[in-house]
Amino acid sequence: MTETRKLRMGMVGGGPGAFIGPVHKIAAELDGRIELVAGAFSQSAERSRAAGISFGIDPSRAYADYGEMLAAERARKDGIDFVVIATPNHMHLPVAKAALEAGFAVVSDKPATATYAEVLELEAAVAKAGLPYALTHTYAGYALVREARAVCASGALGPIRKVAVEYMQGWLSGALENTGQKQAAWRSDPALNGPGGCIGDIGTHAFHLLEYVTGLEVKGMNAALRTVVKGRRLDDDCNAMLRLKNGATGVLMASQVAAGERNDVRLRVYGEKGSLDWRQEDPNRLRVKWLDGPEEIRHAGGNYLSEGARAVTRLPGGHPEGYIEAFAVLYREFADGWLAWRRGEPDPLPATLPGIVAGVRGMRFIERAIESSRQEKWVEF
Amino acid sequence: MTETRKLRMGMVGGGPGAFIGPVHKIAAELDGRIELVAGAFSQSAERSRAAGISFGIDPSRAYADYGEMLAAERARKDGIDFVVIATPNHMHLPVAKAALEAGFAVVSDKPATATYAEVLELEAAVAKAGLPYALTHTYAGYALVREARAVCASGALGPIRKVAVEYMQGWLSGALENTGQKQAAWRSDPALNGPGGCIGDIGTHAFHLLEYVTGLEVKGMNAALRTVVKGRRLDDDCNAMLRLKNGATGVLMASQVAAGERNDVRLRVYGEKGSLDWRQEDPNRLRVKWLDGPEEIRHAGGNYLSEGARAVTRLPGGHPEGYIEAFAVLYREFADGWLAWRRGEPDPLPATLPGIVAGVRGMRFIERAIESSRQEKWVEF
Amino acid sequence: MTETRKLRMGMVGGGPGAFIGPVHKIAAELDGRIELVAGAFSQSAERSRAAGISFGIDPSRAYADYGEMLAAERARKDGIDFVVIATPNHMHLPVAKAALEAGFAVVSDKPATATYAEVLELEAAVAKAGLPYALTHTYAGYALVREARAVCASGALGPIRKVAVEYMQGWLSGALENTGQKQAAWRSDPALNGPGGCIGDIGTHAFHLLEYVTGLEVKGMNAALRTVVKGRRLDDDCNAMLRLKNGATGVLMASQVAAGERNDVRLRVYGEKGSLDWRQEDPNRLRVKWLDGPEEIRHAGGNYLSEGARAVTRLPGGHPEGYIEAFAVLYREFADGWLAWRRGEPDPLPATLPGIVAGVRGMRFIERAIESSRQEKWVEF
Amino acid sequence: MTETRKLRMGMVGGGPGAFIGPVHKIAAELDGRIELVAGAFSQSAERSRAAGISFGIDPSRAYADYGEMLAAERARKDGIDFVVIATPNHMHLPVAKAALEAGFAVVSDKPATATYAEVLELEAAVAKAGLPYALTHTYAGYALVREARAVCASGALGPIRKVAVEYMQGWLSGALENTGQKQAAWRSDPALNGPGGCIGDIGTHAFHLLEYVTGLEVKGMNAALRTVVKGRRLDDDCNAMLRLKNGATGVLMASQVAAGERNDVRLRVYGEKGSLDWRQEDPNRLRVKWLDGPEEIRHAGGNYLSEGARAVTRLPGGHPEGYIEAFAVLYREFADGWLAWRRGEPDPLPATLPGIVAGVRGMRFIERAIESSRQEKWVEF
Repeated sequence: MTETRKLRMGMVGGGPGAFIGPVHKIAAELDGRIELVAGAFSQSAERSRAAGISFGIDPSRAYADYGEMLAAERARKDGIDFVVIATPNHMHLPVAKAALEAGFAVVSDKPATATYAEVLELEAAVAKAGLPYALTHTYAGYALVREARAVCASGALGPIRKVAVEYMQGWLSGALENTGQKQAAWRSDPALNGPGGCIGDIGTHAFHLLEYVTGLEVKGMNAALRTVVKGRRLDDDCNAMLRLKNGATGVLMASQVAAGERNDVRLRVYGEKGSLDWRQEDPNRLRVKWLDGPEEIRHAGGNYLSEGARAVTRLPGGHPEGYIEAFAVLYREFADGWLAWRRGEPDPLPATLPGIVAGVRGMRFIERAIESSRQEKWVEF
Repeated sequence: MTETRKLRMGMVGGGPGAFIGPVHKIAAELDGRIELVAGAFSQSAERSRAAGISFGIDPSRAYADYGEMLAAERARKDGIDFVVIATPNHMHLPVAKAALEAGFAVVSDKPATATYAEVLELEAAVAKAGLPYALTHTYAGYALVREARAVCASGALGPIRKVAVEYMQGWLSGALENTGQKQAAWRSDPALNGPGGCIGDIGTHAFHLLEYVTGLEVKGMNAALRTVVKGRRLDDDCNAMLRLKNGATGVLMASQVAAGERNDVRLRVYGEKGSLDWRQEDPNRLRVKWLDGPEEIRHAGGNYLSEGARAVTRLPGGHPEGYIEAFAVLYREFADGWLAWRRGEPDPLPATLPGIVAGVRGMRFIERAIESSRQEKWVEF
Repeated sequence: MTETRKLRMGMVGGGPGAFIGPVHKIAAELDGRIELVAGAFSQSAERSRAAGISFGIDPSRAYADYGEMLAAERARKDGIDFVVIATPNHMHLPVAKAALEAGFAVVSDKPATATYAEVLELEAAVAKAGLPYALTHTYAGYALVREARAVCASGALGPIRKVAVEYMQGWLSGALENTGQKQAAWRSDPALNGPGGCIGDIGTHAFHLLEYVTGLEVKGMNAALRTVVKGRRLDDDCNAMLRLKNGATGVLMASQVAAGERNDVRLRVYGEKGSLDWRQEDPNRLRVKWLDGPEEIRHAGGNYLSEGARAVTRLPGGHPEGYIEAFAVLYREFADGWLAWRRGEPDPLPATLPGIVAGVRGMRFIERAIESSRQEKWVEF
Repeated sequence: MTETRKLRMGMVGGGPGAFIGPVHKIAAELDGRIELVAGAFSQSAERSRAAGISFGIDPSRAYADYGEMLAAERARKDGIDFVVIATPNHMHLPVAKAALEAGFAVVSDKPATATYAEVLELEAAVAKAGLPYALTHTYAGYALVREARAVCASGALGPIRKVAVEYMQGWLSGALENTGQKQAAWRSDPALNGPGGCIGDIGTHAFHLLEYVTGLEVKGMNAALRTVVKGRRLDDDCNAMLRLKNGATGVLMASQVAAGERNDVRLRVYGEKGSLDWRQEDPNRLRVKWLDGPEEIRHAGGNYLSEGARAVTRLPGGHPEGYIEAFAVLYREFADGWLAWRRGEPDPLPATLPGIVAGVRGMRFIERAIESSRQEKWVEF
């Protein structure tokens, strides 16, 4: 018999002031496969309850504490199937471990944990639990990122020689953390965020996108992290040079003080025969360029796109899909993976869905970047 | 006491093969204000039931006939609050009338009806029922379209002199209707679609966008409708010149045989001091140009945008929102309007939400275009 | 023996205040095939002499009167080979006729004459003289326009179904002619400009580009000319619908009151299988779109481009060529044609160089547009 | 008395197979201030003579040897005023020194010399001669680069924090130097080119553009040079991290093996309040972005642009100027400088014209990049 009921999701964090909480709910529910039914949205019982009401869930399932949620939901017949973690970074490990130990699959915001040591602990916990674990590297959910991945995998570009990935934001150009803005506040506090500021918050996205699309691992890095805004306690700008396992080299640039930028993620991959170029602020187009031929713009919805790209496209060409839809692709794949896990399939999670491996890579990246920058030299991965 | 429960929606049409059915569901539910609970998705009981299951509703509420649905839902305590009509055009009027007569508010696909005569009948029915009626001119839901509207309303461009609106598609470049493709089939059949082919299907969107953004009425038109694909029974291409009430002139171009285009809706508005330019395939940017100053690109999410634009933006700048989100804006505004109606407020629907007035304008536009084209001359509205 | 000396050019008009005079000189001389040696730059002897000095020619060859120039240059052993006409429109015919009668080839600014009657007289004069005559429809000189022409000629797009050509400027948004600005002044004076304002000044460019690229003739038009700026004596804005000989239809839009635009010439051509899109403000790229395949951007300098495009490209890819270089292409082709004429070849002018045929078409276009607009109906060509 | 005659230019190099020779001639002559009258275009007397004829100069002034040219021209009453050097790099120093010693001003291709040691010798020679020396960093001639420079100088962006400059080409993606292609051949030969391949050929352009626009000096660099194409004798790809004197940091990326790119020079400058973004393949637009305001596109020809930008614009807005026109700006400024020098003015060269200081900086940049890459660590300038 097919499992046709929706998966039930419990959220930790994501309450008032968190932009990402509502996005998780909308994205998770978008394809009709998942529903938010419980949450520990805030450490304040009152605020958690208010969030629960605003999310439209049964108020009795809005908990003040994630431990309480895990216990209570475990005891329900209609309890949650998995936990989504939308807290500041320092809570990622404890919540994920507790959820896994309670038998719940996990979807987690990135970076996977606050520190590299923590992620190794998490990796062990995931392995031990044998439960699905997914990491929301949202950009991996865009159809054209899937197309880029397919182009690389096809070998059409020839051997990859050079990559350039960047993630430019400007919202932390001033000391926003001193104004009470919650998003800025915890991200600037090493205790809540971990040691990597910009490098952890968005550098990891850039790093993941690079490895995800090219299928190549970074093996060496020379990074320069910097705190531009006076008084800020973590890095807010990063430049790095990269060496990839296949001999390719590259550049990674991330900044949260690039005044005038919004959320400009861009990946370029250069091979011997051609190259590709994708930008998140124009997500439904992928540029593919050739040594001597017209530049191509591949558009979402085209029948000529790879199977992988078409599989995650909901609308006909020319009807833009955006960030929420990309996010929803990850949730849809997680639902597929969860069902496969439930059926007892080996390796149940789709290969296209970022998981604990990506989580470990990301934390290693942060750790190596900090070390390289501290030593002002190349480091190995 | 606040009405916090979700509004309950029943869909007519939108079943297998209809791209728009799932879009309605996703969009309606996106903001957590509405849920799809019932439907007469197909005239085949079996297919309607299958659609109901795929939509995740209670199978007993998937009806074979909209009349049946209206009666049954009316009898339920937890029955639907409104009907969404996602059928071919010829069903718009009968379904809408029946729904209104049964006491249900209506959200309808455009064009409002199949013919101009019909829309007058619908207009009367809406007036008589005193119930909310909304028309899904989706593009009106984009934040930057709201910004464009605010720019026009502000007078910043000076008196409007010229407009150019176009809607270019290529999907009907061949005789797709002969291949069994359902979308193409009913759109090419005058009995199901009404007399306006391309002019009705997408010309009305262009026309609406123009009047919606500028706040100006078209009063004269000289149109040239044409059937490019041999054997097709309705127009598939249209050029038109326009005269607006304030003395401005313009061009409207719509085509479904523009090979290579996807869904290229573009509006330009020229005033004495400046102009604006918006494209649906790049929906999160609005270009505003000045007689002697830098061209501006206004980006979704900017704090500098008008209140109206900010009100319909869910994500921070640089996180693209797309077609579904725009659609969801209309549903959100409909939910607001429905609640206001329930509270007995006069004029409960937000002015930003297209309704029966837009419906009548659109049908008049089709009728006038056909007449102008037939006579090969200017006609008055 | 090869004629290796430079062709000698005498200019009429183009003196102080005329933007186009220096452009003619730079463009004509750019490829080292032509030199400006004489001119009647102004009707004031003093100003003509000053212009001559600023152009670096022998002051004794800066004449006050074009008749004088023709006579004097004819008498010189090293006299001019051809005349370039850079005057207001009303002088095009008398100067061209006098030059031809004096045995000089002619390069003329567009439109060819001030009126349609005049151009027929000119056509006869050109035929009688048997001398080269070229018309500077500058946009025909861009490499990517040549590519667009080659794409159409190749049949790759399938039968052409629809065209859209536009030329949007904003510089006459106010009554600039009342400020003493010379360019605006003569263009707004029917006696100097002829009866077609915007339609003559830039509409003809759009019209020419359309016929030049597609190789198709316009056979019917329904135009709406309009004077937007109060007190202006000629049209400053135009919309038109077109019928082409092969059954295709189209739209032509031209405006000089489109506030915020600079010189936005754009041509789109839609065929059964694909389409093309070129914009003058981004001249080194041509977009070619297909029914179901990636959109192509063809870049100037590509080895994959047509022979015709490559023949008029001077620089490697990625080194932008602009308006002056396009202009210089026409001069280079004129020089080729002149030499072929000198050698006695039949049809000496390259087919790619606009000449008297284009001149007659353009004047017919103006005349027909005015007539159509006056009658508010379709007219035949 | 004003010097109204044209300056006379003698070219060394630039003969058959050199793309840059004709560009020098066209650019130098474009504004009517300079004429090419002599040259030692090739070391083969026959080929030099052929080049001279193709350039349209007196064949007796096409020399086989630059020494011969300098002597002969010095002896003529109408001899050259300055020498332009368009040879492979190893000849830059000997030719420049000889020219200066013979009393001729110099315009030289970049990089200034083949090695850093050589440029110090050249610097001394320029100082000793007291003659004008200009370096053709062409991109400095674009109007919008001048605008970018003005924006930085104005302080409008606030303190500069980060820069990103890149120069991506793909033409050396294969071993073109083995096919007999002359441009590739000498650039890949250390003896003719000097030790810096890609870093010298285009990295120097990127470096110069960065310092030119921001007015800030680079003081530290961590570079990774690499030879991607097997068998190639010099680097063809470079990544680097930068430190600027004011504390800003940055990235410089240059590649000649970026398959699919043509000549993609891009500079981004981020300040505390805003940023700017310029691309050479779209040279007539400059993007200026603000922390919270619409993004601006400044267009060439705008009256709102800085005086410096307007001073180097020849055409009205919307009439694209390109690479040749930018090049011609440098020649025009050189002509101004030469005349000022002739009049005995101190510091006769315009500050906007790259000269020997830029030459020394560029060679230092190459030397430092190679050293940093060799040592795999940060180096100081």
